[in-house]
Amino acid sequence: MSLHADTSASFRHLLDLELLPVHHLKHVLQRAQAFAEGAQAPQALAGVAVCTLFFEPSTRTRLSFQLAAQRLGAYSLNFDASTSSVTKGETDLDTFRTIEAMGVRGFVVRHKSDGAVAALAAAAKAGVAVVNAGDGRSHHPTQGLLDMLTLRQAKGEDFSKLKVVIVGDVKHSRVARSDVHALRALGCGEIRVCGPAALLPDDDTLHGCIVTEDLDAALEGVDAAMMLRLQRERMAEGLVASLEDYHRDYGLTAARLQRAAADAIVMHPGPMNRGVEITDEVADGPQSRILNQVANGVAVRMAVLEVVLTN
Amino acid sequence: MSLHADTSASFRHLLDLELLPVHHLKHVLQRAQAFAEGAQAPQALAGVAVCTLFFEPSTRTRLSFQLAAQRLGAYSLNFDASTSSVTKGETDLDTFRTIEAMGVRGFVVRHKSDGAVAALAAAAKAGVAVVNAGDGRSHHPTQGLLDMLTLRQAKGEDFSKLKVVIVGDVKHSRVARSDVHALRALGCGEIRVCGPAALLPDDDTLHGCIVTEDLDAALEGVDAAMMLRLQRERMAEGLVASLEDYHRDYGLTAARLQRAAADAIVMHPGPMNRGVEITDEVADGPQSRILNQVANGVAVRMAVLEVVLTN
Amino acid sequence: MSLHADTSASFRHLLDLELLPVHHLKHVLQRAQAFAEGAQAPQALAGVAVCTLFFEPSTRTRLSFQLAAQRLGAYSLNFDASTSSVTKGETDLDTFRTIEAMGVRGFVVRHKSDGAVAALAAAAKAGVAVVNAGDGRSHHPTQGLLDMLTLRQAKGEDFSKLKVVIVGDVKHSRVARSDVHALRALGCGEIRVCGPAALLPDDDTLHGCIVTEDLDAALEGVDAAMMLRLQRERMAEGLVASLEDYHRDYGLTAARLQRAAADAIVMHPGPMNRGVEITDEVADGPQSRILNQVANGVAVRMAVLEVVLTN
Repeated sequence: MSLHADTSASFRHLLDLELLPVHHLKHVLQRAQAFAEGAQAPQALAGVAVCTLFFEPSTRTRLSFQLAAQRLGAYSLNFDASTSSVTKGETDLDTFRTIEAMGVRGFVVRHKSDGAVAALAAAAKAGVAVVNAGDGRSHHPTQGLLDMLTLRQAKGEDFSKLKVVIVGDVKHSRVARSDVHALRALGCGEIRVCGPAALLPDDDTLHGCIVTEDLDAALEGVDAAMMLRLQRERMAEGLVASLEDYHRDYGLTAARLQRAAADAIVMHPGPMNRGVEITDEVADGPQSRILNQVANGVAVRMAVLEVVLTN
Repeated sequence: MSLHADTSASFRHLLDLELLPVHHLKHVLQRAQAFAEGAQAPQALAGVAVCTLFFEPSTRTRLSFQLAAQRLGAYSLNFDASTSSVTKGETDLDTFRTIEAMGVRGFVVRHKSDGAVAALAAAAKAGVAVVNAGDGRSHHPTQGLLDMLTLRQAKGEDFSKLKVVIVGDVKHSRVARSDVHALRALGCGEIRVCGPAALLPDDDTLHGCIVTEDLDAALEGVDAAMMLRLQRERMAEGLVASLEDYHRDYGLTAARLQRAAADAIVMHPGPMNRGVEITDEVADGPQSRILNQVANGVAVRMAVLEVVLTN
Repeated sequence: MSLHADTSASFRHLLDLELLPVHHLKHVLQRAQAFAEGAQAPQALAGVAVCTLFFEPSTRTRLSFQLAAQRLGAYSLNFDASTSSVTKGETDLDTFRTIEAMGVRGFVVRHKSDGAVAALAAAAKAGVAVVNAGDGRSHHPTQGLLDMLTLRQAKGEDFSKLKVVIVGDVKHSRVARSDVHALRALGCGEIRVCGPAALLPDDDTLHGCIVTEDLDAALEGVDAAMMLRLQRERMAEGLVASLEDYHRDYGLTAARLQRAAADAIVMHPGPMNRGVEITDEVADGPQSRILNQVANGVAVRMAVLEVVLTN
């Protein structure tokens, strides 16, 4: 659930892209685009403390948020909840409330459990904002936003004619869910989803999407291929036979990419398993927008922190 | 030992509350109250580097000091001595002197051994200040100060009529010792201490306190109940039979709290073991000042850092 | 390999002292001396993000660079690659490019493999600078620079009459290699190297040096003794019989130090194994410059970051 006013440009927390009104989503993308083009706001959050509170570790996402906070003039603090007092038996909510009581106004929270970030946001005091940096399999809204920004930069603002395919372990992916929510909200012409049956969700996540297990078919004529990371634990769980099998069936190679539109772009949220879901040739090739995604990540997080912490 | 001039408002290090002259203690509380009410000093420590040097991990205390340092304009650095070069066999003193030689002027030090922080302070160069963030079972002066600030906010500056009870594992608690030192210094009317015999100190720590194993009696008419965290290793050590037994005899419940004065406040240094030393009803109830303590912690640490680093 | 323009005062990366033109080396030392004497440049790197990217942990070097970056007004970020997404199978180059894509312009990189830092530098985008904070056994250029600064402060700028001895595990030491490169570049009169045969390099590292296994002879008349840390794993590897044997043959004692010039200085890169390669009496004695080295480390790193990030 996103908690927000419906009419203004601002909203209080960013928890998901599913319920976020589309005008808010577009407002963030517009502001992020300005930051991506070099806009500066070095005093926007002067005197504001922003804490990255990660109950599940992720160095790259944390770093991206820290840079965004610093570039807005905020104090940046880190609480690695995966290794600290949480292990002393404190509840997540007490950890959150304690840091909140210290005067921290912005929280960037990652948690392995679905809904855990929203639960903390629901308990936040007035004036305190929570940004979901990934919860369980559910939501990773800033990843969704940065993917949309990357798409817009390559393909323009009108998504109605676009064909986009998301490939891989959609079932366990909060990235995929946030991308689907955002693509729907922005009126993407065709959302295709491709992966082995064992890695496709069996709920209504993909309502309205074209779902297939055949990557060659899925790539036909697309404007963008969004590759997902294959977590190696899927092998141990028996959901994937081997990395070799997965690569053969679902790895994006230069040959396969020729099925896509000539100007199709390739995306990946990182970190990449080169040689598994994507080859070097594609990852480093001219159609890759993978490093643009990373750059856009900082811009999007600046825009989000600015919106939720200034109003 | 506290090293300080006796007459000025300033002192060089903050190592304990036992030997700190009461006018210094009151000066810090007064300045901390100003910070708690919103006073700002964003340039007070501009250009000064403050390092949290923790030989024993504690995320929440570290974070509180970091926020305090940042709000005064200091550079904030962290050296987690529990996981770094110390493991290469370097002495604590060499670690301290090395960071000191880098130009760090403020040290916030936690150590598992009694007296270890004072030993480093004794070796400090001119112009360098050490704040004890907890050593062994001995001292945790900023916790004592923030507890006193919380008491003052609730009960006024005159402690002579106050009855305060400290409950729990007093024997192993630097928080309890620092609270007793501070309550004595501020002329608290009655200091009660309550816990099972195995968790009460057998030295002269509690000189002048009313000591009992009976929590119901100890709570009778008190103005404040300061609950201590029960470390789970006390079970392994055979000092406590079980969490259930401990909760039955020494857990603060809403029913028990009725024995205290009607306007009594409840305090806890955190992190809490809910359902062990304190129930949810009390921790989250109207008499709880637990989150006020956390907020006061930043204010007290700002005041302490300002005093020891500006003169 | 150092990548640099040959004529200006600036160079792009600092990877080693072997190929760095001597006028660059001297320029850095001159600027570092100014910082050591109190020069300030609090806005030199305002708005620039500097990331310490350590594939091999080192708290003290990281802290020294962080302080240097902060004192120049940079944003300071840390990516501990020894514990993060690298373990998810990402290549070092992808990790580097990802942080680079976030807008980080300065990288301080440590790596356990020889040449790994230079490989990342070769891939850096225009405008991005890499400083080698130690790679394998090869290079640790800022350590070499801070050692030279310390020597200059004690002995003046003309090294042509100086006799310097480096003692210990030269074979595995990037510190020793960088010191030899720098001493050669600055025209040191006599470079002696001393250690047990098993800890001396068998390649051409020591070309032009006087090499001996006899410490008493090696110390005769030297102006400076640079002691190296003995890594304890050398025992497990069978390269050293015992700490006691090593100390007897290669430990610097006050008695042995008398063989050196009366005003000889003693240096050690830290952390020290007191009682092994150096005694307390020497480490803490009047000829020790060990803490000066640490202080000079921040000054040198300020100078290096300023040079590579402003042009």
